[in-house]
Amino acid sequence: MENITRFGVSIEPELLKKFDKSIKKKGYSNRSEALRDLIRKNIVIEESTEPDAEALGTLTMIYDHHSGPLTSKLLELQHDHHHEILTTTHIHVDHHNCLEVIVLQGKTREIQKLADSITALKGIKHGELVLTSRSL
Amino acid sequence: MENITRFGVSIEPELLKKFDKSIKKKGYSNRSEALRDLIRKNIVIEESTEPDAEALGTLTMIYDHHSGPLTSKLLELQHDHHHEILTTTHIHVDHHNCLEVIVLQGKTREIQKLADSITALKGIKHGELVLTSRSL
Amino acid sequence: MENITRFGVSIEPELLKKFDKSIKKKGYSNRSEALRDLIRKNIVIEESTEPDAEALGTLTMIYDHHSGPLTSKLLELQHDHHHEILTTTHIHVDHHNCLEVIVLQGKTREIQKLADSITALKGIKHGELVLTSRSL
Amino acid sequence: MENITRFGVSIEPELLKKFDKSIKKKGYSNRSEALRDLIRKNIVIEESTEPDAEALGTLTMIYDHHSGPLTSKLLELQHDHHHEILTTTHIHVDHHNCLEVIVLQGKTREIQKLADSITALKGIKHGELVLTSRSL
Repeated sequence: MENITRFGVSIEPELLKKFDKSIKKKGYSNRSEALRDLIRKNIVIEESTEPDAEALGTLTMIYDHHSGPLTSKLLELQHDHHHEILTTTHIHVDHHNCLEVIVLQGKTREIQKLADSITALKGIKHGELVLTSRSL
Repeated sequence: MENITRFGVSIEPELLKKFDKSIKKKGYSNRSEALRDLIRKNIVIEESTEPDAEALGTLTMIYDHHSGPLTSKLLELQHDHHHEILTTTHIHVDHHNCLEVIVLQGKTREIQKLADSITALKGIKHGELVLTSRSL
Repeated sequence: MENITRFGVSIEPELLKKFDKSIKKKGYSNRSEALRDLIRKNIVIEESTEPDAEALGTLTMIYDHHSGPLTSKLLELQHDHHHEILTTTHIHVDHHNCLEVIVLQGKTREIQKLADSITALKGIKHGELVLTSRSL
Repeated sequence: MENITRFGVSIEPELLKKFDKSIKKKGYSNRSEALRDLIRKNIVIEESTEPDAEALGTLTMIYDHHSGPLTSKLLELQHDHHHEILTTTHIHVDHHNCLEVIVLQGKTREIQKLADSITALKGIKHGELVLTSRSL
């Protein structure tokens, strides 16, 4: 962050006190850092409602690898979409459960659609998509 | 807001540009106003996870007033909790549907519990609770 | 609900046990009621991302009525949009704070835009929009 | 899923029609699969508000690896918490940006706290935590 600019914020003292308490608890070392994070978080939320915005996503899912043809279907689906899928991390949680995290790249709409199709597969117990952006 | 204080924020110019674009679209007249809103929104979210925090809430619900004993049950429940319920607004949306907004006051946990019981009543089609705070 | 249909759901016994525990805690009298609510909640979430869907909304906001020209601006804005605004409920929370709930009607996009403009007014401390639908 | 049980759901025909349309769009092959997913998603949301529940989490974050001492701080923090951190996946998104996904295990409260500390580090542009559970 070699290139920075500064601006002033006016705020009620009581609100600032609450804010300072909240960011200290989270571990922030200063207000600018915390405010930049708040701003970026909001921009990501706004962009995620624009279907044509370029985005990155991670799909977290839990499944039982004994669930019949699931693992082969998962592999197939991922190969069909190898342009959108950057990488997959697999954790053997216990005898039955796998946690898999897929990192996706593409337009918001495409990432959402692919995440929906994967989550809808029989045997996937829970799938949750997080969107983020490289343009922050 | 007679009593205000000021502090400086350092930020990357590109991020500030995105922020300015976003707040202009929403109708904010300046950055301080938008940042204070972001800060307050976050404090409300954090307080809403503390079960003993004092809060205000509004429960929005849609129901069909032809749904058997619902209206009398609703009235009864609201009278049993008249300490937590400040007011109720009722809209006759169409021949079947009512929109009702209940304003609640109390501890986060109590408001949540009462909103759950109301939403769970047979005939309530959709209920959604919003929490806010008078200490902002 | 004179007109109902039935279908069967297959589920793991342990998951059903967790579900039963969860809905009992919320006060549901039976599974169908709880499942219908889950289904409706999801449909509302999906429709709220379609900008042209017809919706109902409630905007909850907290403000200090001593905040200069806010009250007259609020009145003006609401009159300019009297087609979208069905009703307004005002609560005098304490010496400074007002809680106001505005019930809105229109397309998702219009409701969102109007709620943004109101929340962006100087003096509104916190505004939160809930969307719902009459077509549930 | 060798072990399953069945129960009946009563529902308004129009609501069922909306539900069928929604799940078809998402790629579900049948209603039971979609309803189980809805149920699990809700249980995960409820458990995530219980600070002592055992959970799994994935923290997705974007950062610029040129941001001074960030990479060494990140490594240090992760080693200090190697009991909670199962694995880390790193993607070189472009010349500046890294996407990193950390898989965490522990009590909801601990996962949340660790995710907050990491997100608060100077240089992390955006961090978003997803919680899930092995007990679904």
